[in-house]
Amino acid sequence: MPEAVTRVMSEVTTRVGCAQLALAVGDGPGNAAQIRLAVNRAADAGAKVIVLPELANTGYAFDDRRELASLAEAVDGPTVTEWLELARGLDVTIVGGIAERGDDGRFYNSAVMADPEGLRARYRKAHLWNTEKGLFTAGDERPPVVATSFGRIAIMICYDVEFSEWVRDVALRGADLLCLPVNWPLYPRPATERPAEIVRVQAAASSNRMFIAAADRTSEERGQDWLGGTVIVDADGFPTTALQLGRAGTVMADLPLADARRKAISVGNDVLADRRPELYQAVVDDGSQARPGTI
Amino acid sequence: MPEAVTRVMSEVTTRVGCAQLALAVGDGPGNAAQIRLAVNRAADAGAKVIVLPELANTGYAFDDRRELASLAEAVDGPTVTEWLELARGLDVTIVGGIAERGDDGRFYNSAVMADPEGLRARYRKAHLWNTEKGLFTAGDERPPVVATSFGRIAIMICYDVEFSEWVRDVALRGADLLCLPVNWPLYPRPATERPAEIVRVQAAASSNRMFIAAADRTSEERGQDWLGGTVIVDADGFPTTALQLGRAGTVMADLPLADARRKAISVGNDVLADRRPELYQAVVDDGSQARPGTI
Repeated sequence: MPEAVTRVMSEVTTRVGCAQLALAVGDGPGNAAQIRLAVNRAADAGAKVIVLPELANTGYAFDDRRELASLAEAVDGPTVTEWLELARGLDVTIVGGIAERGDDGRFYNSAVMADPEGLRARYRKAHLWNTEKGLFTAGDERPPVVATSFGRIAIMICYDVEFSEWVRDVALRGADLLCLPVNWPLYPRPATERPAEIVRVQAAASSNRMFIAAADRTSEERGQDWLGGTVIVDADGFPTTALQLGRAGTVMADLPLADARRKAISVGNDVLADRRPELYQAVVDDGSQARPGTI
Repeated sequence: MPEAVTRVMSEVTTRVGCAQLALAVGDGPGNAAQIRLAVNRAADAGAKVIVLPELANTGYAFDDRRELASLAEAVDGPTVTEWLELARGLDVTIVGGIAERGDDGRFYNSAVMADPEGLRARYRKAHLWNTEKGLFTAGDERPPVVATSFGRIAIMICYDVEFSEWVRDVALRGADLLCLPVNWPLYPRPATERPAEIVRVQAAASSNRMFIAAADRTSEERGQDWLGGTVIVDADGFPTTALQLGRAGTVMADLPLADARRKAISVGNDVLADRRPELYQAVVDDGSQARPGTI
């Protein structure tokens, strides 16, 4: 008989803030000023982990590769240098997205984690969205899972989270909190429905019993409208605060991150232990051809 | 720049019905009568594919294995025999769950597909829920994907759908419609939130651009309350009809199943082609130990 599991929630919480910023492509100083203000305010309000949107240094809607080339920065460039100073000065962990110029001269849609210890991780988006494919090189490394004093923090970027394989990877490696810089384009949806991007984040969290903090952007950019769907979801897959669709501002929540270590969802079930990896091997071996079978 | 894809929706639709039944454990004749009535009415209303709940012949809340043993049936037993007759007589495809007594004397939480041609598939639930683990043997075969005149129809059961590996498997094998018999226990949730079970079905559909028809049960059974969360979700992940939480009755929708063959979600993106299977291999090779990494 299904029974609810009684969980003793940890009393230790970590205040996490997601800054939903009105970024503008090409306005590096303006974007940097918004970030500085948002990080300072969130830290003043007690946030220990602060998530910024994807491509927060540059904005998103590049006219072409030449414009991207003029705006992208190395990981030791001014943007990440400032984030490292903010992290050290305010004693916070910052996860945010940048347009990165790699040592190899290629461009990557990347995210970094800066904390008082320094640069803890750099991740390059592995699943590129639409015209990003003509601008950026896709990353080919697995998403980082970084041990911090708050718990294990994973990083991926926007469209990555729609690939359940990627989400499962960080969950299996023990992630308690997935920090997710995003730039979610605004798409039509039925009037009564929550945006599908948020629904997929909720499902990713509950299927793995892991917290997810997604920081989106807002404001129109060269004809592109953005969802502004910033959301912090708990390990049961429910948003921790009311949605602030489209509004600039910072969403904050106090997360009992240790709750993500308890994968039980009934007396007899555990979302990770119940996997049947011996049966999944064939899925990976297969290509994507349709080969319908019958009894 | 992200752009919406213009899709020409197929004008050919398939009417799919999901019967949300008030099953009662041990009342085989009563359950069979409800099924007969629901299938006849759905067929009269034009449904071509009719989905029934999990364990529709027996109900769910067995006292013990002995009670299950007294109720389970072989696939050539009276329940499936009647479903085959209904399918033939009404020219419909029926997918429903049964407590199955296998040739090996073991019990399985199974689902079958019966159509006018006969028994098209039998599937044994691979991810067992809670006390099912003490009653049933878990299946060890991949979920079927059956070519029909309506499209390719996959089958899995309840908790199976929470394993993204399993859902991806049928999507990669070309499933257009996933028929999902379920018995969803009623759990507490925030007052403003949709049940997590439905959220996960929505995400599974949209992440794979595949229709999902989930037929739940309702009515209290030996102290167990059920969600009654029957839902038919389109390939964008949105419910096709208003939810009828907890109410007995049949949910119907006309589904343009060919829409599931179009996996594009932007000019440059395709939910299956954008996978990075070469990067996922390591995930499968890993166990579930936490091995956090840093830069």
